[in-house]
Amino acid sequence: MTEKAQIGVTGLAVMGRNLARNFARHGHTVAVHNRSYGRTKELVEEFGHEGAFLPAESAEDFVASLERPRRVVIMVKAGKPTDAVIEEFAPLLEPGDMIIDAGNAHFADTRRREAALKERGLHFVGTGVSGGEEGALHGPSIMPGGSPESYEALGPLLEDIAAKVDGEPCCVHVGPDGAGHFVKMVHNGIEYADMQLIAEAYDLLRQAGGHTPAEIADVFRGWNSGRLGSYLIEITAEVLRQVDAETGKPFVDVVVDQAEQKGTGRWTVQSALDLGVPVSGIAEAVFARALSGGAEVRAAAAGKLPGPSAGAGAGAGAGGADLQADVEQALFASKIVAYAQGFQQIQAASAEYGWDIDPGAMAKIWRDGCIIRAKFLDHIKRAYDKQAGLQTLLVDDYFLDAVSGAQAAWRRVVALAAEQGIPAPGFASALAYYDGLRAQRLPAALIQGQRDFFGAHTYRRVDKEGAFHTMWGADRNEVTA
Amino acid sequence: MTEKAQIGVTGLAVMGRNLARNFARHGHTVAVHNRSYGRTKELVEEFGHEGAFLPAESAEDFVASLERPRRVVIMVKAGKPTDAVIEEFAPLLEPGDMIIDAGNAHFADTRRREAALKERGLHFVGTGVSGGEEGALHGPSIMPGGSPESYEALGPLLEDIAAKVDGEPCCVHVGPDGAGHFVKMVHNGIEYADMQLIAEAYDLLRQAGGHTPAEIADVFRGWNSGRLGSYLIEITAEVLRQVDAETGKPFVDVVVDQAEQKGTGRWTVQSALDLGVPVSGIAEAVFARALSGGAEVRAAAAGKLPGPSAGAGAGAGAGGADLQADVEQALFASKIVAYAQGFQQIQAASAEYGWDIDPGAMAKIWRDGCIIRAKFLDHIKRAYDKQAGLQTLLVDDYFLDAVSGAQAAWRRVVALAAEQGIPAPGFASALAYYDGLRAQRLPAALIQGQRDFFGAHTYRRVDKEGAFHTMWGADRNEVTA
Repeated sequence: MTEKAQIGVTGLAVMGRNLARNFARHGHTVAVHNRSYGRTKELVEEFGHEGAFLPAESAEDFVASLERPRRVVIMVKAGKPTDAVIEEFAPLLEPGDMIIDAGNAHFADTRRREAALKERGLHFVGTGVSGGEEGALHGPSIMPGGSPESYEALGPLLEDIAAKVDGEPCCVHVGPDGAGHFVKMVHNGIEYADMQLIAEAYDLLRQAGGHTPAEIADVFRGWNSGRLGSYLIEITAEVLRQVDAETGKPFVDVVVDQAEQKGTGRWTVQSALDLGVPVSGIAEAVFARALSGGAEVRAAAAGKLPGPSAGAGAGAGAGGADLQADVEQALFASKIVAYAQGFQQIQAASAEYGWDIDPGAMAKIWRDGCIIRAKFLDHIKRAYDKQAGLQTLLVDDYFLDAVSGAQAAWRRVVALAAEQGIPAPGFASALAYYDGLRAQRLPAALIQGQRDFFGAHTYRRVDKEGAFHTMWGADRNEVTA
Repeated sequence: MTEKAQIGVTGLAVMGRNLARNFARHGHTVAVHNRSYGRTKELVEEFGHEGAFLPAESAEDFVASLERPRRVVIMVKAGKPTDAVIEEFAPLLEPGDMIIDAGNAHFADTRRREAALKERGLHFVGTGVSGGEEGALHGPSIMPGGSPESYEALGPLLEDIAAKVDGEPCCVHVGPDGAGHFVKMVHNGIEYADMQLIAEAYDLLRQAGGHTPAEIADVFRGWNSGRLGSYLIEITAEVLRQVDAETGKPFVDVVVDQAEQKGTGRWTVQSALDLGVPVSGIAEAVFARALSGGAEVRAAAAGKLPGPSAGAGAGAGAGGADLQADVEQALFASKIVAYAQGFQQIQAASAEYGWDIDPGAMAKIWRDGCIIRAKFLDHIKRAYDKQAGLQTLLVDDYFLDAVSGAQAAWRRVVALAAEQGIPAPGFASALAYYDGLRAQRLPAALIQGQRDFFGAHTYRRVDKEGAFHTMWGADRNEVTA
């Protein structure tokens, strides 16, 4: 009897290839398939020594080479290509087999596909995989959705190839249907916010502090050994230290300052709007990238819009160690807000879609393998371990201590940015969110009054139950609505 | 021969009823129909003296009573009810007839419906109608989409019932298919931002200025006779002046401070994300409402999250006329940013969907009849009259002068809010957007460096064409991508 593969990967661009190699390196026999056979041959020729690969030229041979229940990982472009590959393989599979979509699909598509394949007796597992090419090869953070039964058959293989922290895999069954792709999406949204906040910290140190990129690289390296320690802080130091070989200038000064994006940040904000969760930190990050990329608008504004007069706000600790310490506090506090918002979105989606996601487990599997990996996530895990139904991370002791300690500096930094004309939408928005959340009374009461005035939308009262309307256009008496 | 109606309205809840009455009051014979005939009878009994109504019990009679081409206005709930009514009437109509959806449909639904009905030879006109119940009766701002041919047959009737400014109707053919519902959506998004900014101004005057709602009502009344003059400022003064009859307290203090929303603000931000237009002002307004409505999260945070120490930031003009003048400047400048963002979104959508919208005409038809009606809109109209392809309102002379004059005060107010712990996400975000737009260099270059580091996403250089990648994991040399 011919040897069968435990798992198959179809779609052998760099991500698929690296996932296949990762499975093989962990002792699994891996069936490999690609639309054009050339890529399949290349993989086996180049990396065949790493483990056992079963190359297949046709979809039929590929499926025939898999042990039951078959585990077919598809790694193709999101959208129509994914649907096309599903339609190619589903008819070849048998009840109980599973298709694993390891691409960055929108969770709504994953929900649709899961429901459709369930009717055909197949498991569909939308799986978030974070960590890029390197992660795929050496150990990503893996966020599988789909049915619990599918995880029984698939989980052990995914846990094998995932990153490990203290021997524990960065992989857990997130929840049914689209839950895995959902949390991967929010992971990316948080990543956008994290990167924007880091960029603002750099900009403040450069513009208000007068430091060079190399000096700021040292500041980030220092921060990396403290509570901010994380992959993104680490690579920020590397990028800022880099010198352009051609011009001798700091690398960051020769790069066009227009940030690009691929969609998951935008999806995160769109979903949060549907869920009614204020993810202002992620939204400001997505918009900051959009603003930076709006070359025509920026060109029209260039040199026209005036800034503050020289010397404005120069008092507030500009330059020196005070500014650095203040910016570190502002960065940490703003980061806490961004994560609190993202985790609130996960909790809201879990309730909305019936996913029963354990938010602490998400923090746990993000501790390594993915872009936002950081020590910080240990504290998030602990916060949810202590209180599963935590309404917001901000009230957990650790984070509450952190923002309490940071807030004076945070306020100074936001004020300094406003006064000196340095754009800090992430810091400012995070602080406004914090102050909104802690407000005893919000001016939202005025908005309710306006809405009742122009649209008879009614309002509630603080002192009794019911909905009320004031006859604004008449005697201005209040009536029960 | 029986008299025929020029137009018909089906769906006689308050908006539909008032539109029907408005047509009748302008001398048009109006066929009226409702799912339950009782409402139709009521309308004719109560308002029959206002004009000529042709009540119809069945859809067939209703359609038979209309002159050709038939103009059927449907005024029912967005979503499935709208599709149901379309399916009820479309089979009864003949080529060249038109169905006018005057509800708040999502523009994507309108595009879908227009395309489907076009195949059946019918015109479908998605029409924004702003101004609420009162506007519907006395003259709304009307934003019809659909084909130019449909506007030829329908436009004169809509212009008749629209609000007028100097004799000119607040109604214009916006553009094909979903263009009308799109601009109505953005109108509402701008309205959210406007209301949030007004709420922040009030909150600052109350908390930092120590003024009572009645005193602040006077401030708003004063502002209403200046450049901020607008319906929303006017009704804000009315709401703030209102005293609760039951408790003797200011009305605004007895209203629950949780702002509600109905979806168009959310849609605006979701669309802007798809279009890549940074509408941070609208997003912060939508999120501020969501935050205010998050009762459980706020309750969890209540009394736990500390604010600034007493006296912080108290120097910056707190109390007195300086603060009022500063807040007026901040409000005006932030409002300009919100409108600039909304109009940029309209321009982007027009290009994306091939609508050829004249943004100045939108400003013109918003000058009366709708919620955001204001003098201010004259300046927007003029800006686009001067330069049709204006990249951003901020660089038009009038607005540039305004933000230039406002910016010192604007910066003081944002700094003051940060220091005193008063949430001002709208003001802060608008200023950050302004500073981002005018920045010579943005830290987006660092973000591009990070993306290239962790995902090999490549970057462009300021000094030559092409896409580049640095071999971060190897020798850190740059290669052409």
